Amino acid sequence: MDDTFLDRLRSIVGEANVLASGDLSAYEQDWRGWWTGKALAVARPRTSQEVADVVKVCVAAGVSIVPQGGNTGLVEGGVPDASGRQLVVQMGRMQAVRQIDEANMTVTVEAGCVLASLQQQVRDAGLLFPLSLGAEGSCMVGGNLATNAGGTQVLRYGNARDLCLGLEVVTPAGDVLHSLSGLRKDNSGYDLRDLFVGSEGTLGIITAATLKVFPLPASTVTCWAAARGIEEAIGLLGLARQHLGASLTGFEFMDETGLDFVVRNMPMLRVPFADSLPPYSILIETSGPEPEPQARAVMEALLESALQQDLITDVVLAESGEQARQLWDVRENIPLAQVADGPNVKHDISLPISAIPAFVARSQETLSLSIPGVRIVNFGHLGDGNLHYNVQGPEGCKPQEFMARHGEQVTKLVYQEVAALGGSFSAEHGVGRVKADALAAYKCPTALRLMRAIKAAIDPLNVMNPRPYDEAAALKP
Amino acid sequence: MDDTFLDRLRSIVGEANVLASGDLSAYEQDWRGWWTGKALAVARPRTSQEVADVVKVCVAAGVSIVPQGGNTGLVEGGVPDASGRQLVVQMGRMQAVRQIDEANMTVTVEAGCVLASLQQQVRDAGLLFPLSLGAEGSCMVGGNLATNAGGTQVLRYGNARDLCLGLEVVTPAGDVLHSLSGLRKDNSGYDLRDLFVGSEGTLGIITAATLKVFPLPASTVTCWAAARGIEEAIGLLGLARQHLGASLTGFEFMDETGLDFVVRNMPMLRVPFADSLPPYSILIETSGPEPEPQARAVMEALLESALQQDLITDVVLAESGEQARQLWDVRENIPLAQVADGPNVKHDISLPISAIPAFVARSQETLSLSIPGVRIVNFGHLGDGNLHYNVQGPEGCKPQEFMARHGEQVTKLVYQEVAALGGSFSAEHGVGRVKADALAAYKCPTALRLMRAIKAAIDPLNVMNPRPYDEAAALKP
Repeated sequence: MDDTFLDRLRSIVGEANVLASGDLSAYEQDWRGWWTGKALAVARPRTSQEVADVVKVCVAAGVSIVPQGGNTGLVEGGVPDASGRQLVVQMGRMQAVRQIDEANMTVTVEAGCVLASLQQQVRDAGLLFPLSLGAEGSCMVGGNLATNAGGTQVLRYGNARDLCLGLEVVTPAGDVLHSLSGLRKDNSGYDLRDLFVGSEGTLGIITAATLKVFPLPASTVTCWAAARGIEEAIGLLGLARQHLGASLTGFEFMDETGLDFVVRNMPMLRVPFADSLPPYSILIETSGPEPEPQARAVMEALLESALQQDLITDVVLAESGEQARQLWDVRENIPLAQVADGPNVKHDISLPISAIPAFVARSQETLSLSIPGVRIVNFGHLGDGNLHYNVQGPEGCKPQEFMARHGEQVTKLVYQEVAALGGSFSAEHGVGRVKADALAAYKCPTALRLMRAIKAAIDPLNVMNPRPYDEAAALKP
Repeated sequence: MDDTFLDRLRSIVGEANVLASGDLSAYEQDWRGWWTGKALAVARPRTSQEVADVVKVCVAAGVSIVPQGGNTGLVEGGVPDASGRQLVVQMGRMQAVRQIDEANMTVTVEAGCVLASLQQQVRDAGLLFPLSLGAEGSCMVGGNLATNAGGTQVLRYGNARDLCLGLEVVTPAGDVLHSLSGLRKDNSGYDLRDLFVGSEGTLGIITAATLKVFPLPASTVTCWAAARGIEEAIGLLGLARQHLGASLTGFEFMDETGLDFVVRNMPMLRVPFADSLPPYSILIETSGPEPEPQARAVMEALLESALQQDLITDVVLAESGEQARQLWDVRENIPLAQVADGPNVKHDISLPISAIPAFVARSQETLSLSIPGVRIVNFGHLGDGNLHYNVQGPEGCKPQEFMARHGEQVTKLVYQEVAALGGSFSAEHGVGRVKADALAAYKCPTALRLMRAIKAAIDPLNVMNPRPYDEAAALKP
């Protein structure tokens, strides 16, 4: 069977674009090397029609498909399982920017375009595509949409979902959904676009998208403020919204423990207030059409008001783009600085912003009671209610031992507090295989039933990126 | 059967809240009186649990449900059919604002709250809920979400969809989906929220929602500009985006014919440049956190630049809130001014903004060739690509005769041009029963198949607001 199947694939995408032997580890393993599967083969189609034909061949052969972009996901959603019976459909050859439409402020791009390349091509046209995240040098637009990627500009421009106006998708039946027209208003039926966005390749393969672009901001102003507590940090967020309106592009926070890792382990980075770290540090970025002096004046007025209201105790305003970059570097290197002390239990959670102080207090208490000396590193996109909440073993412990002994316990305690406060166990990384158990445990049962019904309706043969929770559903009476 | 059924309803919502006799026309007829159906009864539940229990009783009895809010829809989506076998579930008793969360910038509100009441309650808390449309005095939030309402602030704040963070929904199985937590990031499974938003009561009954609120703008600036052609108007839009960024709240356009109706039929309104109407008039509104003098200076710089580039030929800047209101009055009264000359064929269409000049030229040509002397009134939300494209018979014709003879022909010609240019036959009004034929004719066949599969999966018994296209689907082999 396999030879016939592979021959059919070759006749669609060409001999060179079916990989069935040799080292396929780049496709079988996620980029961090945490999970390794075994693929039946890898197909690299060039057009949406080729994708559709590949899907039909898979359906006929009873082979399931794992769509794959840059393979930078964090939840084991883009690598095959261990069966050796799944086909990886790698989208990297569909990388064209089909059109930049300046009057409509849209770009139409294929799924395999690397995010940084899309950003650059849009910038070359004098415009901004604002989606920005750590993996942008290798992640692909199709994957960004399939996972509803977040990143650092969500506060102003939204998630990948909010940037998407239309999609081209190959369905599990091998049909092509044509919906790339780039309309800002379209109430002609169910919102299929948003169903595919964030569905992690389980409902179809996104082959192209029409996305919003924006004017390049004329100015960007960045500052770094010190706050005594999380309540003050949230108060500052409210004040920033009032002063800055839609110019507020970034509002990131970092706790003292996280920055202490940076101070100790990355001495080349200049951490503000390093001599006496405040409980919380905040990075604020504003950008917009105003000339820089005007934007700085607005930021200064905000900071003055925040000092007067005792929301912040100190502040540094970046004097140049270079200084702003250095501040962002500190923020972005916390995970790396933490790695120097060994692995830790990571969580990508979100909460209503008003519930964050209670979460911080309760989870700190619960974790410290359960595991005395445990170290919590809490940082992330406060403006979106998105915390990267990492838990490291007590000073001097053996990290691997801590992970093995306490990893699951820690995650359960954290997710329970999150759920009790109306939060989500996955803010921006998705579900994949890694969080399938959390989905079953914490999602509203009605939501789970609806999800399973939709999956079964659109993909009755379970061809597209089958997941543990689909299989659980299949066993249901 | 009916008596038992009604008794069961009464035991759930109370005797007084089951209307089964007397004049039910307020529930059986849309607000314009265009369509009249016949209801089996009207139930008015008070809680989501009551809604769920009503649904279960309907399922058991084989009675289908028409969810109804303020009954202000424009596509016959909220009134029962003529069978006398459908239950209207009217949501007006679920009208509480459950919570305004200032730190999270959200409001949680029940489906039956009138939009204007929600706006006011949020404003009383010092915040802005920006959804705004003509029917706001009687339409209800649940209907706004079920139809993904648009309105005048979409350019800055988005459609109802974009304002919604979470929903509480009663499914066709009588389950309650609890998802009101108000998270700005949540990638824990399929996007059910956006599936229910815009589904027009065919997948479930929205009983409550958590919606975004915003800081009240510190200043608003309004102007009215004259442009020689649609290309210039679109050029002005691009320039406005650059100068104003996210402060650009409104960008409305009106053609000469439309304003001429206002000048002739509504002499109490002061139309700028009435003595010599330009081909196109543009209303620009900007709002944001800046003090008014600063906001005016930015608007003046934009207008100066537009005059220099010959994008506009003249301009009026409103000197007061009262003058701004007068300008909006002119824009909003075009439909009413047109009615004075008798009914016309209305279209609520959207196009990629870059395709609008071609659409204007082509549809004008096609219509004039088919029906010499036909009068086109084209106005709407240019910033969103949303045109209210109304076609009136030639001067001196009998309007009713024109409608009867040419109505369908005109709509077909308009929709064909829209489809050829990648547009939508429904920008903000939805599908309902009125546009079910257009949906079948112009929607991508793959999209239709997916919609039908989703409807069948979530509502296998076709209990929720059955539609012609569902029935067509049911007949499929």
